Amino acid sequence: MAKTFRVGMIGYRFMGRAHSNAWRQAPRFFALKANLELHTICGRDQANVNAARAQLGWQHSTTDWREIVESPLIDIVDITTPTSSHAEIAIAALKHGKNVLCEKPLGLNLKECEQMFAAAHKSKAVHMICHNYRRIPAIALARRMITEGTLGRIFHFRARYAQDRLADLDFPVDWRLQSKSSGSGVHSDINSHIIDLGRYLVGEFKEVCGLVHTFVPERPLPEPAVKGVSKMGKVDVPDSAAFLGWMENGVLANLEATRYASGRKNHIEIEINGEKGSLYFDFEDMNKLKFYHGDDPKDRRGFREIIVTERDGLQPYVSHWWPPGHGIGYEHTFVHTVVDFVNACADGKPVHPTFEDGLKNQRVLTAVEESSKKGKWVKV
Amino acid sequence: MAKTFRVGMIGYRFMGRAHSNAWRQAPRFFALKANLELHTICGRDQANVNAARAQLGWQHSTTDWREIVESPLIDIVDITTPTSSHAEIAIAALKHGKNVLCEKPLGLNLKECEQMFAAAHKSKAVHMICHNYRRIPAIALARRMITEGTLGRIFHFRARYAQDRLADLDFPVDWRLQSKSSGSGVHSDINSHIIDLGRYLVGEFKEVCGLVHTFVPERPLPEPAVKGVSKMGKVDVPDSAAFLGWMENGVLANLEATRYASGRKNHIEIEINGEKGSLYFDFEDMNKLKFYHGDDPKDRRGFREIIVTERDGLQPYVSHWWPPGHGIGYEHTFVHTVVDFVNACADGKPVHPTFEDGLKNQRVLTAVEESSKKGKWVKV
Amino acid sequence: MAKTFRVGMIGYRFMGRAHSNAWRQAPRFFALKANLELHTICGRDQANVNAARAQLGWQHSTTDWREIVESPLIDIVDITTPTSSHAEIAIAALKHGKNVLCEKPLGLNLKECEQMFAAAHKSKAVHMICHNYRRIPAIALARRMITEGTLGRIFHFRARYAQDRLADLDFPVDWRLQSKSSGSGVHSDINSHIIDLGRYLVGEFKEVCGLVHTFVPERPLPEPAVKGVSKMGKVDVPDSAAFLGWMENGVLANLEATRYASGRKNHIEIEINGEKGSLYFDFEDMNKLKFYHGDDPKDRRGFREIIVTERDGLQPYVSHWWPPGHGIGYEHTFVHTVVDFVNACADGKPVHPTFEDGLKNQRVLTAVEESSKKGKWVKV
Amino acid sequence: MAKTFRVGMIGYRFMGRAHSNAWRQAPRFFALKANLELHTICGRDQANVNAARAQLGWQHSTTDWREIVESPLIDIVDITTPTSSHAEIAIAALKHGKNVLCEKPLGLNLKECEQMFAAAHKSKAVHMICHNYRRIPAIALARRMITEGTLGRIFHFRARYAQDRLADLDFPVDWRLQSKSSGSGVHSDINSHIIDLGRYLVGEFKEVCGLVHTFVPERPLPEPAVKGVSKMGKVDVPDSAAFLGWMENGVLANLEATRYASGRKNHIEIEINGEKGSLYFDFEDMNKLKFYHGDDPKDRRGFREIIVTERDGLQPYVSHWWPPGHGIGYEHTFVHTVVDFVNACADGKPVHPTFEDGLKNQRVLTAVEESSKKGKWVKV
Repeated sequence: MAKTFRVGMIGYRFMGRAHSNAWRQAPRFFALKANLELHTICGRDQANVNAARAQLGWQHSTTDWREIVESPLIDIVDITTPTSSHAEIAIAALKHGKNVLCEKPLGLNLKECEQMFAAAHKSKAVHMICHNYRRIPAIALARRMITEGTLGRIFHFRARYAQDRLADLDFPVDWRLQSKSSGSGVHSDINSHIIDLGRYLVGEFKEVCGLVHTFVPERPLPEPAVKGVSKMGKVDVPDSAAFLGWMENGVLANLEATRYASGRKNHIEIEINGEKGSLYFDFEDMNKLKFYHGDDPKDRRGFREIIVTERDGLQPYVSHWWPPGHGIGYEHTFVHTVVDFVNACADGKPVHPTFEDGLKNQRVLTAVEESSKKGKWVKV
Repeated sequence: MAKTFRVGMIGYRFMGRAHSNAWRQAPRFFALKANLELHTICGRDQANVNAARAQLGWQHSTTDWREIVESPLIDIVDITTPTSSHAEIAIAALKHGKNVLCEKPLGLNLKECEQMFAAAHKSKAVHMICHNYRRIPAIALARRMITEGTLGRIFHFRARYAQDRLADLDFPVDWRLQSKSSGSGVHSDINSHIIDLGRYLVGEFKEVCGLVHTFVPERPLPEPAVKGVSKMGKVDVPDSAAFLGWMENGVLANLEATRYASGRKNHIEIEINGEKGSLYFDFEDMNKLKFYHGDDPKDRRGFREIIVTERDGLQPYVSHWWPPGHGIGYEHTFVHTVVDFVNACADGKPVHPTFEDGLKNQRVLTAVEESSKKGKWVKV
Repeated sequence: MAKTFRVGMIGYRFMGRAHSNAWRQAPRFFALKANLELHTICGRDQANVNAARAQLGWQHSTTDWREIVESPLIDIVDITTPTSSHAEIAIAALKHGKNVLCEKPLGLNLKECEQMFAAAHKSKAVHMICHNYRRIPAIALARRMITEGTLGRIFHFRARYAQDRLADLDFPVDWRLQSKSSGSGVHSDINSHIIDLGRYLVGEFKEVCGLVHTFVPERPLPEPAVKGVSKMGKVDVPDSAAFLGWMENGVLANLEATRYASGRKNHIEIEINGEKGSLYFDFEDMNKLKFYHGDDPKDRRGFREIIVTERDGLQPYVSHWWPPGHGIGYEHTFVHTVVDFVNACADGKPVHPTFEDGLKNQRVLTAVEESSKKGKWVKV
Repeated sequence: MAKTFRVGMIGYRFMGRAHSNAWRQAPRFFALKANLELHTICGRDQANVNAARAQLGWQHSTTDWREIVESPLIDIVDITTPTSSHAEIAIAALKHGKNVLCEKPLGLNLKECEQMFAAAHKSKAVHMICHNYRRIPAIALARRMITEGTLGRIFHFRARYAQDRLADLDFPVDWRLQSKSSGSGVHSDINSHIIDLGRYLVGEFKEVCGLVHTFVPERPLPEPAVKGVSKMGKVDVPDSAAFLGWMENGVLANLEATRYASGRKNHIEIEINGEKGSLYFDFEDMNKLKFYHGDDPKDRRGFREIIVTERDGLQPYVSHWWPPGHGIGYEHTFVHTVVDFVNACADGKPVHPTFEDGLKNQRVLTAVEESSKKGKWVKV
């Protein structure tokens, strides 16, 4: 008879909603190697966490995360809080032998990430950082094609993560725009995602040169003391970042992250160019992967728009959902993450991306920040 | 304190999975006017329905649909079986005062639809036919824009529902390709969807002229008696359909449904052209709506690609899901359907599309079939 | 030593400009089998034709087209006038043994077309109707692919020619909106183009059912007698048309032509679905052809966007222009037409589309008009 | 009576063909302020230049460019040769008072460019560098919109010039891959184009950081001594380049040029993000400009696809060609360049981009090369 994992989740906002959905949906669409119980949800505000418990489908709630990490009832700890609390919670959970799924970025800085990885490395638990975009079916298909050598030698990896919410100069200083809670703003928040995709799809970064930047260093504080009169607050993190890099396999990388691209809502755009073909992906059309194959007859070559919804296990994950052409959405990437994580926990085997991936990602982030300060190339 | 509705669902395959998901997810993302219990699921095969019960999240299972429609415990009956059983179940459920959500097409033929509508009309229950595509946010937004007069006088309604599974000549004779189970094949299965969208978005059909057709009248039977040797079976329903029509408001309609469009997976393509603007939608890119506005300055007019994922209630339904640019998928259209249905049940008010809409749809389907036989225009 | 052809062209407006350009450009980019002299241009207004002569690069001008068709100096007569004058000029030119290139539609009606074809058939001259869109490289490539059997059995031919100029209700009654000059308006003007493409790419029409329609039967006359006060005039031709058809090879056709599609500027949209693949073309992106191939591995199939600009003769015509990715424009289709016409004249061989093609096209146009009157299917 | 300019052109290959076409076509479609005579074409090979003379429409030919620059008959000198000869010819022509149109890049290096600009500055002649892409109608429209402030404060300028011919490792070492003829390969050949577009559309570069790179340093020599046995030659120029930059107005720039992007044929992709809107352009769809406007109502915002083919002078250049939706091609950008150049010569006024623009462009190119060597940011 199958094992049952009891899950405790810390945090209940955007990521808490997305993860809760994943815990609920995973067993409905996939055959998991273990049963799941959405045991306890944790948040700092009693009333809010109670409401979240009911809304999101958890059995219990608490305002003290230590109850979760210390409880012998809990098998899996899922961390969806702001970055500043990741390290403390994750390390405590690992010490108590819990399997840990942690939102990205891993920690506030390199030191925290190293401590987290050390704790993970020492533990026998399964540890995973939630870079959910790896498990977009189109991205997982791209990975498979690259691994099989479909593109031949790769020359370019090009990625941009572009949103536009900060182009509105009245957008307030939220937790993502403050160093104490977010680490390094847009850089750690979304640049980390495309760094992860570069590492997943193409290879390790060897050296980087670029910049982190704050276009708008002052913004309204979220809650005005006097109604209608906003006090201004300081943005002390980057709100944009861009860098060039060389990968260990000789690929030239060009990455950019911004929230100033008017009209781009969640535009994760990736292009990979190889000797024998190219791949292109844009999250705003997430069920598709564009693929140019140099092996097609020369008079009829072109980028193919693959609708990644085939059945019969032909393409990663999608057979579990709907018929061809019936696309999936954003939250499904978390379901896939949970599926793979749970199965790894059941097997007691590692599952990518691990805390080591989170640490390697942070090394790239940190190198870009150092490059930005020094104005020159920096080894990762 | 809020009322609780107990739901009984008949059927557990493709539509059963989609509806179950909707019943589960609706209260997680929307504030419903009633609580929901996924009470009983029904299917003919004991083992299968038990497995479905567990997998899809229902409390009880049965192999006799009459238990559901007759049970005083049940408030809502959801019918997701093949078309041939809709009428009997729905009429029985309505007689027992159940609110009924029924998959499309309403019935096998005009007579059944009339009986179903009569039963609905007589009852005080809420009745709804599940044309889920009405509740794609982009389609609901299109409806709002048209209702507000954004397009001015409308000239053209053009729709195609194109898939490609029958282009594979080895695709077997499933229930959708037999008249006894499906009514009229591709015509009632998917042409009905774009007829519904035409009625929802633009207006009532007045007269039609067109054809239903069977490109491939013989196909392998699904389960070969001797392994590897398929016996052939007869396809006695249309596997494609096309018609021109005039709407009551003078709009020229052109609709086509086919499963022979290689490369088109679930391509529901709609274009509406008016004096002051046009709208274009393609389900394979379901989070977007294209909109051309004649009021834009003449040097910078063009089809806008609206990513229909805005917050703050600006666009229908999507505020309940994720941030801008984080698209939703196919099954969400069923969630929206269930949300509106449940709220209507709680309020005791009608909700479109009703069984009357199902009947009117069938009148168009039937008129096209008659036109196909007679080779001339037929009044709806 | 190469022969020289002296060309006389009747008409100097839109088509006159496009054809003059083609006569000038053809020898600059292609190795023709004969030299060309732009000998005489003809128009009814002396001042205008003189200006056109200088502007468009002709040696002589005249206001009497008979001078051209009767002149022993002239080898080729090119007819770019409104439809009403095609028959008289073409028949006279053929009687004088001239090679004739005639704008579409061939004549005002079936009778004229039959007379024109009879004259052509009797003559030894080369005769061609200028359906320039056949010689878009993407279309010529599509034709080649279909001929080679790439799509397998074809099920659907679907075409729409959509513009939007009449959506402006103040657009005046020009010559194209009057039966005496244009024949049958939008039907003969642009529906004829997609009928031609259907015949070229897929096959002959066997029977049709559809309609021709006038959405706006009254419009301002072009030149108001009193400034600012437009008198209204009657539109006595169709301003839109749509029909379904069966081709001799069993292909289901769906064609529509309109000038009421706001936002569609010159949207000639074609889709062809076959058992083994599909093709899609849109003139507003004329350098591309979309191609779905069922032979691609199933996990990576999708519509390829072929940029039809390859070199080395791999794709029709384009090698003569620019490097890959450096697209061509509308007028190049006329250049290709002239190239093939001139070479055919030099060889004394027929070149498609001939006057017979123009006649067959008119038979389809006429059948649609008859179907529209009778409200039923009509054999072509 | 209008003046007549006699043109002498040096070079007859790719650019020679494109420029010849422009000289021929300009007066056919535009009302120029002067008449044009295609007087003399010059090339080093007697037979080839004679053939080119006939093919391209010139009156005379010569193998000595000095005859052209010294001839009192010549008013305009057009330089379309490889980069290495630009400086000598242009300076000589300017000394003789000729108006000079010179292909890009201006010179082999900064020193040459400075000498050329000095010569231009001293002369009273009109001097222009042929960055033809400025006069794509969509780009000229983008410029107008930006100048009018439509985008508000601009944050990002992002451009990539991507082709794929070098992804074929057997592509030979042509003149563009040798420093003695091309200057700095892909960097000066195509990176210069997008630098020019950045300067034209957004502003001056202040500092840059990036790299020039040679992915494949050895390639076959063009003409094998023994048939089928290629000797290998050295590629001593960059075959790719990428850099980040700050513009004087605070815009963050990201530019990349490569010929290793399989499937990208002539993909000049530009995105500009401002506070109030964004623009996107891709040369492979050159008749379109995408425009997102933050002023549109929030529920219906999206990138508009403007088909830049409107009449009545609403959009730059296109009114002179064809009706809406009838797109133009690559070579038309040269026609527009010649039109503006000729009118400037007639008026004796400067016309952008001047030799000063060529020099400023070279300063950016040189700064990137210096940054590449030093591995750090460099002031332009």
